[in-house]
Amino acid sequence: MTPDVIFIGAGVAGLGAAWLLAEKGVKVLVLERDEAGAGTSGRAGGMLAPSAELKFGEEELLKFELESMRLWPDFVARLEARSQMKVDYRTHGTLIVAVDRDDLERIDHLWTYHRELELEVQRMDGDALRELEPGLAPGIPGGLYVRGDHQVDPRLLVQALVKAIRNAGGSVREGCRVLAIETEAGAVSGVQLEEGFISAPSVVVSAGVWLKEIEGLPKDDRPRVRPVRGQMIAVECGEPPLLKHVVRGPDAYLIPRSDGELVIGSTMEEQGFDPALTAGGLMDILVGAWEVLPGIHQARVLGTWTGFRPMTLDNMPQVRASSVPGLFWSVGHGRNGILLTPATAERMVSVYEGSVLVG
Amino acid sequence: MTPDVIFIGAGVAGLGAAWLLAEKGVKVLVLERDEAGAGTSGRAGGMLAPSAELKFGEEELLKFELESMRLWPDFVARLEARSQMKVDYRTHGTLIVAVDRDDLERIDHLWTYHRELELEVQRMDGDALRELEPGLAPGIPGGLYVRGDHQVDPRLLVQALVKAIRNAGGSVREGCRVLAIETEAGAVSGVQLEEGFISAPSVVVSAGVWLKEIEGLPKDDRPRVRPVRGQMIAVECGEPPLLKHVVRGPDAYLIPRSDGELVIGSTMEEQGFDPALTAGGLMDILVGAWEVLPGIHQARVLGTWTGFRPMTLDNMPQVRASSVPGLFWSVGHGRNGILLTPATAERMVSVYEGSVLVG
Repeated sequence: MTPDVIFIGAGVAGLGAAWLLAEKGVKVLVLERDEAGAGTSGRAGGMLAPSAELKFGEEELLKFELESMRLWPDFVARLEARSQMKVDYRTHGTLIVAVDRDDLERIDHLWTYHRELELEVQRMDGDALRELEPGLAPGIPGGLYVRGDHQVDPRLLVQALVKAIRNAGGSVREGCRVLAIETEAGAVSGVQLEEGFISAPSVVVSAGVWLKEIEGLPKDDRPRVRPVRGQMIAVECGEPPLLKHVVRGPDAYLIPRSDGELVIGSTMEEQGFDPALTAGGLMDILVGAWEVLPGIHQARVLGTWTGFRPMTLDNMPQVRASSVPGLFWSVGHGRNGILLTPATAERMVSVYEGSVLVG
Repeated sequence: MTPDVIFIGAGVAGLGAAWLLAEKGVKVLVLERDEAGAGTSGRAGGMLAPSAELKFGEEELLKFELESMRLWPDFVARLEARSQMKVDYRTHGTLIVAVDRDDLERIDHLWTYHRELELEVQRMDGDALRELEPGLAPGIPGGLYVRGDHQVDPRLLVQALVKAIRNAGGSVREGCRVLAIETEAGAVSGVQLEEGFISAPSVVVSAGVWLKEIEGLPKDDRPRVRPVRGQMIAVECGEPPLLKHVVRGPDAYLIPRSDGELVIGSTMEEQGFDPALTAGGLMDILVGAWEVLPGIHQARVLGTWTGFRPMTLDNMPQVRASSVPGLFWSVGHGRNGILLTPATAERMVSVYEGSVLVG
């Protein structure tokens, strides 16, 4: 069976659109060189936090993020129904906390920007924050409560997308490396694997930071994606849990999961493809987490890992047709790939459908 | 072949004496439930540092340690010759560094005690310390240089002892759990394993913190040994190495190995047999190491682990005959088991020989 469209890379930048297309009866095949989510998606924090992650000057990205946030509730309900599994979508909201008065100035500055953009963000003093999260450090002078910023477990999200694709008749093949894109008369004809050729009229490159390893991509049009390393550590959240809300301090964020894990991240390091954990990286996020939630001192360490964020120069993802007919990009989701999953999926579907109709 | 003496536990508290006895023609059998060194010895830092580890009021322990220090050079030379391997015995000396003026007061207090005990310890200012170790933090105001405090790689030490025992005709059996000591007419007759009974006229219990799991020990005379957890992390020492000397700061020690590892330790935690790493434990030793050697910030993490020190109430090891004829103790070496290896071995040999002559 010849697929209608091949996705290269089983991270959320590919899986979302593959699922939606499969449900529309399009024959999709997702090829992943490792396991689904092993590259970047399964290593992410999973914050759905346009307001908490807001950076000055990134209004275009914010617009795309807010569009995605609006899609999340329906997207997750449908995904959980179709995959018959839960993805730990939690709507407790996010707290942005300051650790001292200087830090509170920075946060108030951000809050001004939130209000300019009409984002729903509530300013709170330290006592009000500790009312919501009694474990927060006594010295925290204040911060912001973002009721609308949520979270999901990225590993479960990836698993659910794979199941939903398969339940809709699509294919996901793991341990299968694409060596090159092949073209015929200037248009995509398929992909070359180690073990042979698969013909397909359309190919979506959703390979994240590993984009450049694929031969045959149009160099002039190829998105520039570079890896930015993040170090993470997971500890036991305990019972009763140390935390219910996502909490962002100045030097670390803390994400409680329903399975009892508390995920702590993360560094932003321009270190190429070096997957190392470093003494300083671990130290910085541990201290950053401890200064907002001192109770983690006794928490058992469950694991440590690093991931590579696929960053572009302007931090905007590239979800579009390429200069080669039949070839599409869905890469460069940076810090926000999990959040952007529904909007990316919908945009890719409409780009694909528009292109197929024209063709 | 019936052994003359069985050692229960292949940590350094047993292996040292087993080797010396094997070389004297005694038929020794060492039984280890896991791998040699897996319990405590292989997880140790390996500092040979009576002066740097000195605690007020522990003169008796110090005497035993100094005796062991005098034995180390000959012990290691003979061990390396007999085992045909190196154990990374390094004699660069140890630096005890203060991180601020208060801390320097504490160190000067310790130095007074060193001089009372006529230990050879040199007081240095910060610049002199940085002359020896250029990577030390610029703010370090001073400290002590202990030329005579050395180090060894505990994992190599364990391997070398096992090889030397075997080369001398002794046996070391790993993966072999002793369930009970058996007696006959009030004297030791052998040990009971899961897979059968081994008869022997003498048994040395060198099982460290796991002592209590062995049935049939005389309860009134059994040493009280409790586990005190230590958390450790190893990072890449780099080239040129970040460090040559062992360095002790107020909150962490750093031990450079010739194979490029830099071992950082350690916490002292009364947590029973819980082997967990904790967020706070890792954070404390990382911060403790970073404040004396800022260059570790970029150092790649190679591994993390915990160990249990076999502590006694008075911190003195018990190397002696028990109340049961043929049964001996070599347990409770606390923080200093590696340092005490030669003196423990010699003491055990003389206790054993004295007892056999009397018998």
